[in-house]
Amino acid sequence: MRIYDIILKKRNGGALTKDEIAFFIDGCVDGTVPDYQAAALCMAIYFRGMTDEETVALTDCMARSGDTIDLSRFGELTVDKHSTGGVGDKTTLIVAPIVAALGGKVAKMSGRGLGYTGGTADKLESIPGMRVTMGREEFLRQVEETGVAVIFQSGNLTPADKKLYALRDVTATVDSIPLITSSVMSKKIAAGARSIVLDVKAGSGAFMKTPEDARILARNMVAIGKACGRNMAALITDMSRPLGTAVGNTLEVIEAAEVLRGASRGDLYDVCAALATEMTMLFAGISHDEAAARVADAIESGAAYAKMKEWIAAQGGDIAWLERAKYGDGAAAAVPVVCPADGFITAMDTEAIGAASVILGAGRSKKEDAIDFSAGIIVKRKTGDRVEKGQTLACLYTNDAASAESAAKRYLDALTIGPEAPEKTELIFDIIR
Amino acid sequence: MRIYDIILKKRNGGALTKDEIAFFIDGCVDGTVPDYQAAALCMAIYFRGMTDEETVALTDCMARSGDTIDLSRFGELTVDKHSTGGVGDKTTLIVAPIVAALGGKVAKMSGRGLGYTGGTADKLESIPGMRVTMGREEFLRQVEETGVAVIFQSGNLTPADKKLYALRDVTATVDSIPLITSSVMSKKIAAGARSIVLDVKAGSGAFMKTPEDARILARNMVAIGKACGRNMAALITDMSRPLGTAVGNTLEVIEAAEVLRGASRGDLYDVCAALATEMTMLFAGISHDEAAARVADAIESGAAYAKMKEWIAAQGGDIAWLERAKYGDGAAAAVPVVCPADGFITAMDTEAIGAASVILGAGRSKKEDAIDFSAGIIVKRKTGDRVEKGQTLACLYTNDAASAESAAKRYLDALTIGPEAPEKTELIFDIIR
Repeated sequence: MRIYDIILKKRNGGALTKDEIAFFIDGCVDGTVPDYQAAALCMAIYFRGMTDEETVALTDCMARSGDTIDLSRFGELTVDKHSTGGVGDKTTLIVAPIVAALGGKVAKMSGRGLGYTGGTADKLESIPGMRVTMGREEFLRQVEETGVAVIFQSGNLTPADKKLYALRDVTATVDSIPLITSSVMSKKIAAGARSIVLDVKAGSGAFMKTPEDARILARNMVAIGKACGRNMAALITDMSRPLGTAVGNTLEVIEAAEVLRGASRGDLYDVCAALATEMTMLFAGISHDEAAARVADAIESGAAYAKMKEWIAAQGGDIAWLERAKYGDGAAAAVPVVCPADGFITAMDTEAIGAASVILGAGRSKKEDAIDFSAGIIVKRKTGDRVEKGQTLACLYTNDAASAESAAKRYLDALTIGPEAPEKTELIFDIIR
Repeated sequence: MRIYDIILKKRNGGALTKDEIAFFIDGCVDGTVPDYQAAALCMAIYFRGMTDEETVALTDCMARSGDTIDLSRFGELTVDKHSTGGVGDKTTLIVAPIVAALGGKVAKMSGRGLGYTGGTADKLESIPGMRVTMGREEFLRQVEETGVAVIFQSGNLTPADKKLYALRDVTATVDSIPLITSSVMSKKIAAGARSIVLDVKAGSGAFMKTPEDARILARNMVAIGKACGRNMAALITDMSRPLGTAVGNTLEVIEAAEVLRGASRGDLYDVCAALATEMTMLFAGISHDEAAARVADAIESGAAYAKMKEWIAAQGGDIAWLERAKYGDGAAAAVPVVCPADGFITAMDTEAIGAASVILGAGRSKKEDAIDFSAGIIVKRKTGDRVEKGQTLACLYTNDAASAESAAKRYLDALTIGPEAPEKTELIFDIIR
């Protein structure tokens, strides 16, 4: 078998066999397939696509390319959740304890943030004392005892994906449905959960800009996950505005605790309830209505918030801090973004709002950058809201006062204010099961 | 400027600017653009194509990437010829002395053969004493005095093309019209001739399998050459059977001398006369009919054959050898290919016939392979000919008797013999000026 023939076959629109895909992936990992041939093949895949059979084979090969996590001791109870990334997306902090409170087992590997999207591992680290790295056995023991553990993705998980993603990132071959699907799903398959719920974001703050594109990706990921033997569901949710009100690590942890205390309703609550409902349906094997009722009860009864504290304590986090923390803690400057005119917010460039939070210190421009956990944004008015000149549209928190002005300008530039209220849009566009 | 953005732009169907193309080519040569990004861009170009403006810029950048040959001392008289490669294609050995006999200046760089197509440099080297390497000044002095010099392409000519072609060769991105055009034309532009005549082959022994595909390539090359300021013409000629009768280095030199002596007419004579006519039209600025008459006269009068001997002597070749050489000289074995049935030859797989000649020792499978100059094939019956069982279809010459059997089998397998005469096909499909 020669990689040249595999490139030629795909370039000419052919479907690759399992063996050909394995030859490619194994060669990427062991270095026998040079980067220039892998790059040419990725570009050919970008143009020619892949059948479901090819994508399943690619996902499977990448999942097996390194360590895999054996969660079989938990039977059918393990359930994972993946978001394609957005601004203000702290759903894992909320749904993981809800599902654990209902008997699910959430053994989750999470990433650090880069660019305008945050990472769950960073958010958790903003809790004083919280550890996001631990050995495999300690991780599994915590899942057994507490029902939930979330750690930084480490070790030799899907090295093929790491290598291929790094190459796609510099060769303009990231936005290919089969390549995105195999990248995401290989990591989820390797992470071992029986059931997986995806939150595919659509809008100005998401990788997929329209619900239609997000739906195509979600359908593909659900189909591939099922073909790999997992229980699957996907939500298509709105990211044309930040989710909830907080953007930034400490701020988002506080908002997540507010939701679990029952003190905060709105878009964040609704998306988290919907995600937790899908997860509960899958791990418990019950109907949508029954799962939704259990999820609502877990929040109202305080069981989910109690589970959040149990989880944080298990990873060394300071519960007393969580109980008393409030927006603005630890930030030297709090700068309002002032509304320049009367009208309605008709659109938000959510990616730009994420970029404004990075300017404040809440995220990384480069992998090596340090994060200011207390920095970020509290969004006070969102798309569809009536606004008045002089009103505070958002509050910016930072320890780098010099950055506040350019962040405020970036934030204002991200808003479109017009005389007419915009059409109402959906929060949850679709559920794919 | 970032190469990533250039790849993305081309991937999305955009047209690259001159500056972007220069950034890419300069980066390929100086190593700042890694191979994996160059490979991804080549694949994107394969799928998206290039406008004429882009191809001109690419050709121009590659032509300037290394040394260029200054032929300005010869004014408008310099004329070059390029064939896209075929089996039995010894036209350069014939047209170069014809054109030089008529006052043209042929300063030609030629390649060595690889695979089923031969190289003019190898054919010349099969003449005892013939030198195909010399310094720049000696080369130009010979052109001045003799009107013709053909040497092995050496030095730092179009290093960008060398690098890019090596990459395309292993990433399945060779057969892209703008990439073929820029590769061929950059070398021709760097080689300095004012006028360039292309012989684009079409058929089973050519890179382009159909006249339609060859026409698209030829039109593109003529347009790009003109845009680069050269006088251009292209012939589309048949390569669905070997050209002439000889395949193999010494054999082809002998056949070329036969044509110039006026002793051989047929397809080879016709193609050479047509090529020499186009070349003479361009360098002399005269009409087709006048050029054709001069070409015919140069052969009939013996002037072209005299020029061939003058040229060979100037490069150290043995004229006495040329005068007396005959088919089979130097080959230990002469093996006939015997016709297995009565009928007509309805098709020839010309590439397979080229491969048979490589088996006999006439060509290289790998760059490092040595060539047996005396090895090769004399084709006695071609497509359209009536054949009888027991008749000799071809004669195989070799010094590796063990190879003759498999070469004979390969040769026979390359022929289709049927009961009906096939339709007559054109020898020269089109002329593009």
